[in-house]
Amino acid sequence: MKATVDLNCDMGEGFGADAAVLQYVSSVNVACGFHAGDPTIMHRTVAGALGCGVAVGAHPSLLDVQGFGRRAMRVTPEQAYDLVLYQVGALAGFCRVLGGRLSHVKAHGALYNMAARNAVVADAIARAVRDFDPALVLFGLAGSELVHAGRRAGLEVANEVFADRTYQRDGALTPRGQPDAMIRDVSAALAQAERMMREGKVRALDGSDLQIEADTICIHGDEPGAETFARELRALLARLGIAVCAPGHPNEVRSHPTFECAGKPLRA
Amino acid sequence: MKATVDLNCDMGEGFGADAAVLQYVSSVNVACGFHAGDPTIMHRTVAGALGCGVAVGAHPSLLDVQGFGRRAMRVTPEQAYDLVLYQVGALAGFCRVLGGRLSHVKAHGALYNMAARNAVVADAIARAVRDFDPALVLFGLAGSELVHAGRRAGLEVANEVFADRTYQRDGALTPRGQPDAMIRDVSAALAQAERMMREGKVRALDGSDLQIEADTICIHGDEPGAETFARELRALLARLGIAVCAPGHPNEVRSHPTFECAGKPLRA
Amino acid sequence: MKATVDLNCDMGEGFGADAAVLQYVSSVNVACGFHAGDPTIMHRTVAGALGCGVAVGAHPSLLDVQGFGRRAMRVTPEQAYDLVLYQVGALAGFCRVLGGRLSHVKAHGALYNMAARNAVVADAIARAVRDFDPALVLFGLAGSELVHAGRRAGLEVANEVFADRTYQRDGALTPRGQPDAMIRDVSAALAQAERMMREGKVRALDGSDLQIEADTICIHGDEPGAETFARELRALLARLGIAVCAPGHPNEVRSHPTFECAGKPLRA
Amino acid sequence: MKATVDLNCDMGEGFGADAAVLQYVSSVNVACGFHAGDPTIMHRTVAGALGCGVAVGAHPSLLDVQGFGRRAMRVTPEQAYDLVLYQVGALAGFCRVLGGRLSHVKAHGALYNMAARNAVVADAIARAVRDFDPALVLFGLAGSELVHAGRRAGLEVANEVFADRTYQRDGALTPRGQPDAMIRDVSAALAQAERMMREGKVRALDGSDLQIEADTICIHGDEPGAETFARELRALLARLGIAVCAPGHPNEVRSHPTFECAGKPLRA
Repeated sequence: MKATVDLNCDMGEGFGADAAVLQYVSSVNVACGFHAGDPTIMHRTVAGALGCGVAVGAHPSLLDVQGFGRRAMRVTPEQAYDLVLYQVGALAGFCRVLGGRLSHVKAHGALYNMAARNAVVADAIARAVRDFDPALVLFGLAGSELVHAGRRAGLEVANEVFADRTYQRDGALTPRGQPDAMIRDVSAALAQAERMMREGKVRALDGSDLQIEADTICIHGDEPGAETFARELRALLARLGIAVCAPGHPNEVRSHPTFECAGKPLRA
Repeated sequence: MKATVDLNCDMGEGFGADAAVLQYVSSVNVACGFHAGDPTIMHRTVAGALGCGVAVGAHPSLLDVQGFGRRAMRVTPEQAYDLVLYQVGALAGFCRVLGGRLSHVKAHGALYNMAARNAVVADAIARAVRDFDPALVLFGLAGSELVHAGRRAGLEVANEVFADRTYQRDGALTPRGQPDAMIRDVSAALAQAERMMREGKVRALDGSDLQIEADTICIHGDEPGAETFARELRALLARLGIAVCAPGHPNEVRSHPTFECAGKPLRA
Repeated sequence: MKATVDLNCDMGEGFGADAAVLQYVSSVNVACGFHAGDPTIMHRTVAGALGCGVAVGAHPSLLDVQGFGRRAMRVTPEQAYDLVLYQVGALAGFCRVLGGRLSHVKAHGALYNMAARNAVVADAIARAVRDFDPALVLFGLAGSELVHAGRRAGLEVANEVFADRTYQRDGALTPRGQPDAMIRDVSAALAQAERMMREGKVRALDGSDLQIEADTICIHGDEPGAETFARELRALLARLGIAVCAPGHPNEVRSHPTFECAGKPLRA
Repeated sequence: MKATVDLNCDMGEGFGADAAVLQYVSSVNVACGFHAGDPTIMHRTVAGALGCGVAVGAHPSLLDVQGFGRRAMRVTPEQAYDLVLYQVGALAGFCRVLGGRLSHVKAHGALYNMAARNAVVADAIARAVRDFDPALVLFGLAGSELVHAGRRAGLEVANEVFADRTYQRDGALTPRGQPDAMIRDVSAALAQAERMMREGKVRALDGSDLQIEADTICIHGDEPGAETFARELRALLARLGIAVCAPGHPNEVRSHPTFECAGKPLRA
């Protein structure tokens, strides 16, 4: 059983659910303008997140607003490095002027999926993050090439898991276009999360069991029922005695003030 | 007579003259993707500039690639602050990974002109720059609202002058759309620069003389004959005994290695 | 008292209310990608609108996705002509492949407001529309320069009025940024619409009465309560005996099948 | 030996060579804003091309200005259909207001290459072109899936060949990233063109001979020496007795006025 886990959520994408889910998570990934968001949305989103005491991460994407960053595109390693660096630098500026700091980087959509499978793309992303700030935590699909690349670059990594997505035998997520990609039943999603926490395992679609390391769980703020799911997931973690904390903050634990972390409340 | 002056040039806009002019200037303003440039062009441009020992500045613009950032657009002060911060943060990241640092910020095109006249826009830009890094130098049209706003924000400022643009009675540049906006005759442009340096004055189109402070002279890399003009301007400054240095670098004078600055060569 | 009036609504901007309001209007203005929408959204929106029997118009905008087309930008008449023509041509293609036709053009946001006041911009837009297809109807703010320009170009025009916006003494809309720009009270908005229909007058914010011609009433699909307002407006028009029809379709009356137009139901 | 062939050139991409090459070609492919160009550039380019009497085609691309449309992107057939239709409709509008007409469609860059190999993408493109106007000619890589798809859709097709690109055994072009992709030696390129015309064959990089149908030859206006190459290619075709005409214009032969087509001058 893990002692702590992070809950993360994508933000700044213009979905109304943002604010509702913010109270349940320990970290957020802020869109940087390449798939969603713009400078003013970024500013407001970072301000809101810092105000809630959650860790702020950059959520860089391929440049594809029309496709919401979900369409794979052939980019060179140099382009992957540069587009991540550009977006991370831009977002870090908003953290800086607000007196906070950037905590992590999580690639978005097609870039995330390409980096999960492709070590060359993964290395380009990991080097961009490390070169910008070696104290940043790199989020990646649990056990994927991106996590390996982060470790190679000397970064702290966070293996990301999904309670409401199905897995394939090799640890990949079932692509969104397929009918069984999402777990729409809340109790089934909670059961998948619980098994990941308790046993470090998940059952793939073909029935096989996979070892899976779960450092951070992704919550989709834009799905209907997102807030209900987030609340029930927090309740489950409380029952299991697992504290919700952002990774990479041993001396600066972040969590929402109404929840306790590592046994004691964050703020009086 | 001034003892030193900066020569600056816009770069990373995809014009071939870039490389040719680079050897004559002490600072460059790098396009940040909103009017020209993209992450990879920015990376390469910053690398080239740092390699030449010139000071690197951000050149943020309104988001208007089709109009090359030259079309005035109604933006709120919040939007102006945010779009400058976004672009400055993005460019600073490339400086950081290359082991250099961002030295200054010069707004581009319509944003520059709006900030020259409009104190509200100017203050928004100056605050964004100051909040990001108070050691940055803010470039602005000599004597304009942007220069005043920079001083109000506690920033070092650089009054920018143009050898090859004509002035109006109030110190504004003649708009590019007008036929007499540019001084195409090289000797006339050099004469205007010389008088600015010697006397701190420039003759406006209506014949009146203006006081003008000249901390940095803009060289247009994209005009035909740019390299010739840059070379002759350097020769003029050498004859006048004026060293070419980027502003804000008292202990770290920047200039091209083949020219001397403050009396001694930069590199053996 | 007018015998007929058009009800129009902006569509394809990614707001959920689209579908709900569609059943109450006789014409829609489809975003063309410059402030909202993309080719696939345009295709689906046009298909939905044609399927409901409403008239389809292009809703061209300045290129400003981040500002939703609401920020004034300095464009030349040539640029205004070209950006309208580009978007109108693009949208007309979707109408054509779906077996329908483009009926009208209504400029969006800042372009609409610029054209209401500025005869040069208005003429550029009107010429683009006329040159593309002289059978198109040009929508413009009632009594504005755009309506005059449309008439000069030989186009049929539709004077647009707003039930839920306040007016200034000169017939201009109160800008959105001002606190009293919107009429949030439904009964007040309906009363404004009724007086426009019955008397051809509207009371400006300063208390003066304006003559106003009302060929088409704009319904905002993205406001809360949009559907309720649309339903009540239709009920009001029914009580007044005013048929709801798109302009420019004398032999091809368009209206939603559940409402009657010109005294007889459109479809059995 | 073929009796006629078309020479085509990409235009409106902002390269200075455009005007110089225009006098040698019989058709041009105009960028539609997704990889290069904007509404005003499109207007001017179409006007210039129509003024020279060359056939005007649309050159639709994936939306990727930063990558100049050369980066493969995963798009659905629906998206491919819609983005082609959007761009073709937009360009056709400029032809219409100028009193000309759109003659053909040639996909650009990555979209062209994807459609050469992938029948699903190819069918989507061909259907968009056919649904918009069945009189349009569809250009595609000689013998590729796009040509087959065009024929399936009932369109006239033009097999496109390249004098200055090398071929692979299966008829595909050697990708641009590879060192031997381009034939930089002018006489070698001319020899390849001559053999295509005389024998309908081209030698692939592996030494094998391919059958190749050559309805249109692409000239790259943006390469150094483009004008020289174009002039020599015209001279070669004249020596061979091959007339230069745009496809799909049996009764309306298009060619530059200084060259003759089908034995007689186009204009007195």
